[in-house]
Amino acid sequence: MLLTPLGQRSLEDAVGLVVQKFGGSSVADAERIKRVAERVVATRREGNDVVVVVSAMGDTTDELIDLAEQIVPVPSGREFDMLLTAGERISMALLAMAIQSLGYPAESFTGSQAGVLTTSVHGKARIVNITPGRVETSLAEGNVAIVAGFQGVSPDTKNITTLGRGGSDTTAVALAAVLKADVCEIYTDVDGVFSADPRIVPNAKKLDTITYEEMLEMAACGAKVLMLRCVEYGRRYSVPIHVRSSFSNLAGTLVAGSMEDLTVEQAIISGVAHDRSEAKVTVVGVPDKPGQAAALFKVLAEAELNLDMIVQNISTRGTGRTDVSFTLPKTDGVVAMQALTRVQGQVGFEELLYDDHVGKVSLIGAGMRSHPGVSAAFFAALADAGVNVEMISTSEIRISVVTRDTDLDIAVQVVHDAFGLGAEEGEEAVVYGGTGR
Amino acid sequence: MLLTPLGQRSLEDAVGLVVQKFGGSSVADAERIKRVAERVVATRREGNDVVVVVSAMGDTTDELIDLAEQIVPVPSGREFDMLLTAGERISMALLAMAIQSLGYPAESFTGSQAGVLTTSVHGKARIVNITPGRVETSLAEGNVAIVAGFQGVSPDTKNITTLGRGGSDTTAVALAAVLKADVCEIYTDVDGVFSADPRIVPNAKKLDTITYEEMLEMAACGAKVLMLRCVEYGRRYSVPIHVRSSFSNLAGTLVAGSMEDLTVEQAIISGVAHDRSEAKVTVVGVPDKPGQAAALFKVLAEAELNLDMIVQNISTRGTGRTDVSFTLPKTDGVVAMQALTRVQGQVGFEELLYDDHVGKVSLIGAGMRSHPGVSAAFFAALADAGVNVEMISTSEIRISVVTRDTDLDIAVQVVHDAFGLGAEEGEEAVVYGGTGR
Repeated sequence: MLLTPLGQRSLEDAVGLVVQKFGGSSVADAERIKRVAERVVATRREGNDVVVVVSAMGDTTDELIDLAEQIVPVPSGREFDMLLTAGERISMALLAMAIQSLGYPAESFTGSQAGVLTTSVHGKARIVNITPGRVETSLAEGNVAIVAGFQGVSPDTKNITTLGRGGSDTTAVALAAVLKADVCEIYTDVDGVFSADPRIVPNAKKLDTITYEEMLEMAACGAKVLMLRCVEYGRRYSVPIHVRSSFSNLAGTLVAGSMEDLTVEQAIISGVAHDRSEAKVTVVGVPDKPGQAAALFKVLAEAELNLDMIVQNISTRGTGRTDVSFTLPKTDGVVAMQALTRVQGQVGFEELLYDDHVGKVSLIGAGMRSHPGVSAAFFAALADAGVNVEMISTSEIRISVVTRDTDLDIAVQVVHDAFGLGAEEGEEAVVYGGTGR
Repeated sequence: MLLTPLGQRSLEDAVGLVVQKFGGSSVADAERIKRVAERVVATRREGNDVVVVVSAMGDTTDELIDLAEQIVPVPSGREFDMLLTAGERISMALLAMAIQSLGYPAESFTGSQAGVLTTSVHGKARIVNITPGRVETSLAEGNVAIVAGFQGVSPDTKNITTLGRGGSDTTAVALAAVLKADVCEIYTDVDGVFSADPRIVPNAKKLDTITYEEMLEMAACGAKVLMLRCVEYGRRYSVPIHVRSSFSNLAGTLVAGSMEDLTVEQAIISGVAHDRSEAKVTVVGVPDKPGQAAALFKVLAEAELNLDMIVQNISTRGTGRTDVSFTLPKTDGVVAMQALTRVQGQVGFEELLYDDHVGKVSLIGAGMRSHPGVSAAFFAALADAGVNVEMISTSEIRISVVTRDTDLDIAVQVVHDAFGLGAEEGEEAVVYGGTGR
């Protein structure tokens, strides 16, 4: 309510409803849980109502998985979810005790108690609705309400479910949406969202703000700070997401606002993302007739594989044949190769190539829609550095290319440099249309 | 249904509904959980429907308590129960996986999911009702249903509760009652109920059967194999309780039948119980006027103390004063002494004595109602052994005395011997009316 979409200051002063999410490393032991409690109480003391979403403590989930593996190689999804959800139950009860010991009332709620209703697919359920009556009552009674992340209940089967990777972030944003919270704070082990991975680009700059659309592209292109699903939820319900460090009190990055809200002063480019987790598959010599490529993608879809970039070359060899390349997560590589091999006779292609020594670098910026010349500067920077581009894909606010994995670091560095994204230059020093070095 | 109240054989052959309860040591690690699964599946394979009640794995509860203590010395009951109930969640999910891995379908249910409705007192809730709809549906679908012991939910507060000591046994017997199970099997680390503690009486004999009433007296007098509450539940709802070892396939002890069902062949005496956990308090020089003793017991009741034996001496000193002695758990000793000290002026007694070097030995047998001479033989045995009797209390089927704690072992031995309860003599060789040695 007191929130201005792209300013930090007002967040600090806000008196309203704040949802705070703490991950497993933030609650890894009793000492850290006490520190989280102090932070929660500080927010409460400022006059805010606070809802806290927690993950399981540090290694708890791994320990539970290890126990299950000692029993059976592939446990049933229902029982595996039942097992894993013990993790948040432990951390949330301990956090409630820690908050109480600081003199503030607190109550913890399982996903089911908090009304987190999901689909019934175990291990990767999706939130379909939240009926937060008990959380609202608890807040109205003056409590800090603590909700287990990552878990819910299926109204169809009445079984306990888990949301899969990034599930606690999604729980937090979804709760913030349904409770009409002023902000959803995601506490993490980094200071916020950066213009590039600081391990590759030492002068990468923490972004004060980023739009949902840009954050979605960042997440889809390999930035790990927020999961795609959680950002999608934030955008759909206009929940400001404040990504910040659990180890400092500094403001982090505010994910908020749509591209339509952007002012002219806004930076054109937000950042450079990279991804080493994909492999490239090339189907060589596909007959260049209608329906042949479609047959390939049909079999891949039936295997429930999500392809990322897809390129079909123009038939250049006068043979009536063409090559089709696509990227997909390396973890899906074996399944994809098996599926394609099975239809080789039917589709009539010549050869399958699998290449897991590729990387993807992506330039993301809402401003590139209205600023011509961005892609020219992008490709010039890569060419000057001698980086060979193997595949290209673009959206309205993103350019991505596939390179050799050995070229990935230098590619990220030269692109980051070319657009003046580093901390020294500052936001106003954006340079494009040249190598900039 | 196929059950004869006092015979073992028919239990083995029964096809019906069996509730099996396994404690923490039976599911302490993955290997033991697999062994429990094999036992459950063996029962299932005989054609029985099986409901399993499990405690938390071995040390889990202690580890969770330790975590809580690192956070706060006295945690809130609500959050402490939330924390502890994670323990059964883990063991029940793992057991379900282990049963599934043997090819049998299984589903686990929390206390709440199984419809275990309790009072709202955290840490020592009482079961008020069970609405086992989901368990029944699961059984009807062919599953082994696994239910978390020790836990439930309060319909008043909607909060998760725990039942306190012996809570898993009580869950099992209560579920067996509401499901009209043929038998409730309590698996433990001993072979059954014995005629005395085998550590004190090496030839103590495992009892094949015992009535609810006798078992209640045994439990109240220090036998630890079953908790009082669980036996009370069994008696109230006529649930046959089969106490047996989780480390062997031998039949254990069947707790069943009322004293009215006893045949003439039935043993007169079941066993000798002992208890080292109590202390004796003596209030010296209480004015021998109406209401003075009542004032003492009122203050003790207000402190929520449960007294066991109470003796008021006849005023012998011509002073118009008397002594009042009672026993109570040592753990309540300090509270009792403080409460009495506060009313010394008001009641006008002379002195308070606290003695925690006492022991209690009890002889229990439904047959003693109709067999005169039992108490004479009991006191003769103690006198012959030179054991001084400090307090006496009796019920219809029990005689208890308080002795020096150093006399307790010999007292148990001579009484056990006097009534021929040992394994060598056999049941028919009951001797009473003499020392029998």
